[in-house]
Amino acid sequence: MKTPEEYVDSLRPLKRDIYLFGEKLEDPLDHPIIKPSTNAVAMTYALAHDPAYRDLASVPSSLSGDRINRFTHLHQSAQELVTKVKLQRVLGQKTAVCFQRCVGWDAMNALDSVTHELDEAQDTDYHKRFRDFLRYVQENDLVCVGAMTDVKGDRSLSPSQGEDPDHYMHIVDERKDGIVVRGAKVHQTGIVNSHEIIVMPTASIREADADYAISFAVPTDTEGITVIIGRQSCDARLLEGGEIDPGNTQFGGHEGLVIFEDVFVPWERVFMCREYRFAGMLVERFAAYHRQSYGGCKVGLGDVAIGAASLIAEYNGVDKASHIRDKIVEMVHLNESLYSCGVACSSEGQATKTGTYLVDVILANVTKHNTTRFPYEILRLLEDIAGGLLVTLPSEKDYRHEELGPKIEKYLKGKADVPTEYRMRLLRLIENMTFGRAAIGYRAESMHGAGSPQAQRIMIARRVDFEEKKRLAKTLARIPE
Amino acid sequence: MKTPEEYVDSLRPLKRDIYLFGEKLEDPLDHPIIKPSTNAVAMTYALAHDPAYRDLASVPSSLSGDRINRFTHLHQSAQELVTKVKLQRVLGQKTAVCFQRCVGWDAMNALDSVTHELDEAQDTDYHKRFRDFLRYVQENDLVCVGAMTDVKGDRSLSPSQGEDPDHYMHIVDERKDGIVVRGAKVHQTGIVNSHEIIVMPTASIREADADYAISFAVPTDTEGITVIIGRQSCDARLLEGGEIDPGNTQFGGHEGLVIFEDVFVPWERVFMCREYRFAGMLVERFAAYHRQSYGGCKVGLGDVAIGAASLIAEYNGVDKASHIRDKIVEMVHLNESLYSCGVACSSEGQATKTGTYLVDVILANVTKHNTTRFPYEILRLLEDIAGGLLVTLPSEKDYRHEELGPKIEKYLKGKADVPTEYRMRLLRLIENMTFGRAAIGYRAESMHGAGSPQAQRIMIARRVDFEEKKRLAKTLARIPE
Amino acid sequence: MKTPEEYVDSLRPLKRDIYLFGEKLEDPLDHPIIKPSTNAVAMTYALAHDPAYRDLASVPSSLSGDRINRFTHLHQSAQELVTKVKLQRVLGQKTAVCFQRCVGWDAMNALDSVTHELDEAQDTDYHKRFRDFLRYVQENDLVCVGAMTDVKGDRSLSPSQGEDPDHYMHIVDERKDGIVVRGAKVHQTGIVNSHEIIVMPTASIREADADYAISFAVPTDTEGITVIIGRQSCDARLLEGGEIDPGNTQFGGHEGLVIFEDVFVPWERVFMCREYRFAGMLVERFAAYHRQSYGGCKVGLGDVAIGAASLIAEYNGVDKASHIRDKIVEMVHLNESLYSCGVACSSEGQATKTGTYLVDVILANVTKHNTTRFPYEILRLLEDIAGGLLVTLPSEKDYRHEELGPKIEKYLKGKADVPTEYRMRLLRLIENMTFGRAAIGYRAESMHGAGSPQAQRIMIARRVDFEEKKRLAKTLARIPE
Amino acid sequence: MKTPEEYVDSLRPLKRDIYLFGEKLEDPLDHPIIKPSTNAVAMTYALAHDPAYRDLASVPSSLSGDRINRFTHLHQSAQELVTKVKLQRVLGQKTAVCFQRCVGWDAMNALDSVTHELDEAQDTDYHKRFRDFLRYVQENDLVCVGAMTDVKGDRSLSPSQGEDPDHYMHIVDERKDGIVVRGAKVHQTGIVNSHEIIVMPTASIREADADYAISFAVPTDTEGITVIIGRQSCDARLLEGGEIDPGNTQFGGHEGLVIFEDVFVPWERVFMCREYRFAGMLVERFAAYHRQSYGGCKVGLGDVAIGAASLIAEYNGVDKASHIRDKIVEMVHLNESLYSCGVACSSEGQATKTGTYLVDVILANVTKHNTTRFPYEILRLLEDIAGGLLVTLPSEKDYRHEELGPKIEKYLKGKADVPTEYRMRLLRLIENMTFGRAAIGYRAESMHGAGSPQAQRIMIARRVDFEEKKRLAKTLARIPE
Repeated sequence: MKTPEEYVDSLRPLKRDIYLFGEKLEDPLDHPIIKPSTNAVAMTYALAHDPAYRDLASVPSSLSGDRINRFTHLHQSAQELVTKVKLQRVLGQKTAVCFQRCVGWDAMNALDSVTHELDEAQDTDYHKRFRDFLRYVQENDLVCVGAMTDVKGDRSLSPSQGEDPDHYMHIVDERKDGIVVRGAKVHQTGIVNSHEIIVMPTASIREADADYAISFAVPTDTEGITVIIGRQSCDARLLEGGEIDPGNTQFGGHEGLVIFEDVFVPWERVFMCREYRFAGMLVERFAAYHRQSYGGCKVGLGDVAIGAASLIAEYNGVDKASHIRDKIVEMVHLNESLYSCGVACSSEGQATKTGTYLVDVILANVTKHNTTRFPYEILRLLEDIAGGLLVTLPSEKDYRHEELGPKIEKYLKGKADVPTEYRMRLLRLIENMTFGRAAIGYRAESMHGAGSPQAQRIMIARRVDFEEKKRLAKTLARIPE
Repeated sequence: MKTPEEYVDSLRPLKRDIYLFGEKLEDPLDHPIIKPSTNAVAMTYALAHDPAYRDLASVPSSLSGDRINRFTHLHQSAQELVTKVKLQRVLGQKTAVCFQRCVGWDAMNALDSVTHELDEAQDTDYHKRFRDFLRYVQENDLVCVGAMTDVKGDRSLSPSQGEDPDHYMHIVDERKDGIVVRGAKVHQTGIVNSHEIIVMPTASIREADADYAISFAVPTDTEGITVIIGRQSCDARLLEGGEIDPGNTQFGGHEGLVIFEDVFVPWERVFMCREYRFAGMLVERFAAYHRQSYGGCKVGLGDVAIGAASLIAEYNGVDKASHIRDKIVEMVHLNESLYSCGVACSSEGQATKTGTYLVDVILANVTKHNTTRFPYEILRLLEDIAGGLLVTLPSEKDYRHEELGPKIEKYLKGKADVPTEYRMRLLRLIENMTFGRAAIGYRAESMHGAGSPQAQRIMIARRVDFEEKKRLAKTLARIPE
Repeated sequence: MKTPEEYVDSLRPLKRDIYLFGEKLEDPLDHPIIKPSTNAVAMTYALAHDPAYRDLASVPSSLSGDRINRFTHLHQSAQELVTKVKLQRVLGQKTAVCFQRCVGWDAMNALDSVTHELDEAQDTDYHKRFRDFLRYVQENDLVCVGAMTDVKGDRSLSPSQGEDPDHYMHIVDERKDGIVVRGAKVHQTGIVNSHEIIVMPTASIREADADYAISFAVPTDTEGITVIIGRQSCDARLLEGGEIDPGNTQFGGHEGLVIFEDVFVPWERVFMCREYRFAGMLVERFAAYHRQSYGGCKVGLGDVAIGAASLIAEYNGVDKASHIRDKIVEMVHLNESLYSCGVACSSEGQATKTGTYLVDVILANVTKHNTTRFPYEILRLLEDIAGGLLVTLPSEKDYRHEELGPKIEKYLKGKADVPTEYRMRLLRLIENMTFGRAAIGYRAESMHGAGSPQAQRIMIARRVDFEEKKRLAKTLARIPE
Repeated sequence: MKTPEEYVDSLRPLKRDIYLFGEKLEDPLDHPIIKPSTNAVAMTYALAHDPAYRDLASVPSSLSGDRINRFTHLHQSAQELVTKVKLQRVLGQKTAVCFQRCVGWDAMNALDSVTHELDEAQDTDYHKRFRDFLRYVQENDLVCVGAMTDVKGDRSLSPSQGEDPDHYMHIVDERKDGIVVRGAKVHQTGIVNSHEIIVMPTASIREADADYAISFAVPTDTEGITVIIGRQSCDARLLEGGEIDPGNTQFGGHEGLVIFEDVFVPWERVFMCREYRFAGMLVERFAAYHRQSYGGCKVGLGDVAIGAASLIAEYNGVDKASHIRDKIVEMVHLNESLYSCGVACSSEGQATKTGTYLVDVILANVTKHNTTRFPYEILRLLEDIAGGLLVTLPSEKDYRHEELGPKIEKYLKGKADVPTEYRMRLLRLIENMTFGRAAIGYRAESMHGAGSPQAQRIMIARRVDFEEKKRLAKTLARIPE
């Protein structure tokens, strides 16, 4: 298992075309906007070496028996699925942002059973290819980004109907040694911090669109890949050099638009090739694992939000007010409700045919669906408790200013024994979570990550046995079948 | 293990003072209003003998090794706590009402660890007494009602401050062979269907109120006990003799006001006697187990509600409408969210010192707190989908009327191939769940059973480690400790 | 203007076929279940003669100049629309049920402008006919029921597509002197208490269904009309003769299924005949007026709910608890939010071509849509505050029982100076509003009256100028048109 | 009435100590961060000269008869209160931010009646002083900031109990010609764009704190005043010079911390001086007017949010999806509910003793309380509809980049006929409203402006006649008084 330092060092040699603000980044890992995001991923390495978290963050590999970082592990029991959620909660607590390593983990667990079932249904060897790849990932303790969402263009049209065939990733050429693909994946969280990119289809695929039914993995520095980092709320504050105004100087996240222009993928890295019937299965399983994840990580962010609310109430001198206490209890209630969903979809997990455990699909969708609601209400309450100063606070430069500093110190003092600077630091952390960079992770990602709300509703509708429930009602109402 | 018939027969010999509508019931089990409630309890016996549910509903006793009804069992693992919830969900699905046997079960599991810890703290033998009682219950497969809620009088006053000392159950005399108690317990669900009554204090107790810190068990036909059955919405329909209008003719519930006028309790049946310091612990543990229960039983009722909604939509010809489908998905989402809480507080359970498992207390409170919200919204959606006919439907007598019957058949016909009578039966079932007898179980009991909403908020506030959460925020905001 | 007594006397001579519980009612106005509903309508007459409410409840007729009951008046200004809402709030406060006279009032105001616009578009004299009818209603101070909702059958089919052509009211014969109609209207609130029935189509109508595009008025004792009264939650309690258990012995409501079997309507009473293009306009205008109404009457019921919550909190000794006070404030907030909608859609009303004022249609739909939500939450809070005794209270007969009475008096005593009987009366009133007869008015009617929730969403979607709103966004984002 | 240009010119000569990012602004009106906020205020001048809005935005003065900008007018009728809300809605639609001029307007209307009632109660001439000031404001068409919120320090302590007496604005010296004050007001919206600052107390004041019971007006360039502009989410983007990334380049808002260090106020500008008994009245009336305002301005922002949602759905090709349409209808419903409250508290307004109309206080508080909820849900839905690209979109510089530009054009294309740049512009506008600068106005200001949520609950609880409501319940339950 790599240490955090070894992890960062292992990324440095990669030669990649990464752009931010219209400039190609020569040393992306040192860029003030990227570095906090790398720190967040590095925390997944740090915990594995931290005696307090070793069992949570590392585990003997089911493939090799060697101790590996849990983020590269195939879940071997329902309890291990629960452990995943607990690990994610801790990481959310420690970073207050997305730590980016789950999507690849979830992709690997999904591919494990799907490639097996693909092979079962036909004469292919995808599962072996995938397992070889996974062994390589485990041995080298790599970060994989899981790339699902195509850019899609006009969403009312299917891949082959659309104006531009490249709006969905597809095969443009098939060669003896592999395939050539074109397309682009958006919202690629942590792409800069990843060694490998695992591509999956974005949705179920019909026969006419078979060329779009592909899954594979390539290193992130493969020729033909261009990455454009998206800009985030308040990102520019990290360029200012201060330590208060960014709110969370240590940790952040990033997303990239990843463009594949005729990228070659060797056969040993191809895990699905035109098997359109299995595209939906891969999407559903990946989505299920990834929807489970939100019942862990976002709960960790919720813990920070609750801690911040409790602390700012204290700094403002209102922590004894009954309405404040009640609102904080409500935040806890919502956060633990979400956690309950994360735990339940895990503890109700079942083994797939490979022995890798899959979460309960309905409950995982329920978990994610609540994630599209509860964090918003938690943040609303946090904004309520924080008070108006959250959005009217003078800048760090004002506070550091010779004349203004003492005025701010005097007038923005809250509780007598708390330095004004602490109050400012805390308010900036809250701003970061409600409006700034972490709000992207806690709000927009809670909404759209692992599928937008409607995707969960569709899956719930598809999976629930309504006929069985109707029978219950008929029996009680004494209506004959 | 008793069969349902043996169970009912075992209750018949009991000579009890049970009143309903101002009359003493000579054969309460045959009363049209009581009988459906007995049927509901009997279902807990039936499942234990049903091959399809045997493992769910019965289990080898941890005390004797004999196969016993699970409703008398001490939970021996977190998985068994989950099994409890699953059993409750099935029973809720099959009865659509409260099946009344959980409260005693939860009381027994709570007493097991609390009596042990009481003995540990002082030189008493409560645990042995309790275990002897429990063996008796297991061997005879008895139903116990768990009696916690005192009548309380003016709730702003403590037991000894109040106008009437008997507003809380207390010791009025101590004899060589036992104690004499006076007081009354309200909301005693299933009292008529119970062999034994297990009394517990209603809240934490201060030293000045030590006489109120008592727990014990007595048969329900003990001298000095008077039971007055409360009246329920639409109860009188059961006296009319029809089979449609009651909505659910097979199953129901009931509650009683149970008055103890100088009832004698022998020492071997006393499990706590003036140990006021442990009253709070008993209340909290019982409440935790009982709050978990709602994550099972009410989910079963939710399944019926969802089934009824799906079916009435079909009968009305609106099952394809997108807004109807969306509302049904929302019902499922809420119901499974509640179930997730029930599962999670169970799978996160921990062993107490006796080996009996206790649920995760915070998550169990979260479970119950959601129960005070989600069923209300599920029912609101059910009322929406059912349509106005839910509350304007002619009576069964009109439908059976020679001239009116054909008119109703013609004009209240929905979908062509569904007899109007089916539609009426289904609407009456829905009415039963939204306004009638089952609404008491699904709505008011979801609100107040196992403690009103504020009780959960207080417990959540007490159990959460806010200091730890504040530290998370401080670390991220770089505020020194 | 009639007095309440004159009103009741004027109904007595009507010879009608009214059935309840399979029996034809000879004196329906004296039936214990119907009488409270007649009382509620009578209150609309009483207020007109009560000096404290005279200006609210009566007004000079815009047709004759004579002082008339406002419930027969055409609104002559936006302020009069506001007055309507205030009158409804007062009546809701005084009865806690539906007082049944709005639907006819709303039908008359809608017909006034629609018949005028019909005549404008073609060579007909509907408006004159309608105005003649209205003068008759005003002069005789009549109650009209407004009959819109057809039984519909399978709702996925249009009137003429359905299995049975009579599932929607339609013309079966046209004669020199009038038309003959067949069909049935459900949910006819207050039909027994009404002199006249005003029939309208249930929805927009296509050319193929022109025979269904009819509106007319006939006396409720017209030959061929059969009424079957629907049964309501807890209706049977009114047959028991007590004064506590019914909760609200004075006031109630009722709905009827009204079947028209080849009923003849003379031309002078026909207000629309096959003009299918105007059916939608009539439905929309009537719906708009009637959706406004809910912003008045249900607010009055909310006031009673709030008063009951405040009083039971006091009786229970918890009125000082901060969480109780907070919940009551929330009830007020929701109730006044609803009232605001009622006021706003009125004060923003505009004159139609006849000078009769029409409410703002979008805001009226918003009003009703909130009515499908807020009362449910108000009741949930009321159930929370009321405590569990709400559903476990012994019956009146137990309380009147010689031996049980004193026990109940002692043990169910709350606050020291409040007789137990008061607490029981109040709890039964609350039960009436949450589970019983008034719950039908406050919950199910709030949901489905004047159209189910989706009907409002469709109307809102249809009326909002989305293009204008898109332009706002484009201008700000500097996107050229 | 000034034109927008004259308005801006009239501010330029003011010599003020205004700081931003630690620098004193020499020409604050030209600063890229301030200028959009000045534009927003200027829109209040522009509408008054725009024939389409003239009657909305200007009005004959009740003092002079001259046509004046409505933002300096005393409301002379309930209808004029409604007009205020309509004007605010239009301005919100046109700017999508806070246009800053309401707070001073609301302060002036509140002072008008309070100073009159002050004079009535004692021998003072505050009302005349105030009216003289108001005439000056009307004649010169000035912008006044209304300064209420003190910095407060530890909020659990009263002004004179606190660690620092200057945490609340107070009199430090009284001279023959006036008073000298010290303190600081936070969250001063639009301070840079204001000619005058009207100071009011922050809360009710007890006798011991009489020195804190002051109200007065001074020019914003008065000696001793220092302004520190707070920093806002994404403010730095305005320094980058682009036209896409700021989202809304034309309009913005700002808040300042305004410090008064021994500022002299001449008697003719003092409107309350130690009359602590009237401090609460001034606070309540100002709050009522200002809470009404939110039922106008934020509705305008909601219109933009709805327009943006409709447009992005179209650009993404999902505008026909039923769940998208349903969510947009929900946004409209919430927005119009809020508007209804704004209209209702206005149309129910009553004349004060000076003839100036005051809103209905309960309904105004209800309006604001809904503002602390509905915009949050509207934005949650907007984030849902916008899709993940909202937070992962590449920067404008990437789009303008020679090589990257065409890639972005190709891959981020949505609907075929919509240029990618339009989609980017729109997404940035949405980002601005959900995370960026306008989110401060739409979210945090909706929460805390005119008082945080609890302030409204306290006011509602204080104003509602609970005894009357209890009487309603008693009458219906037949409980004697």
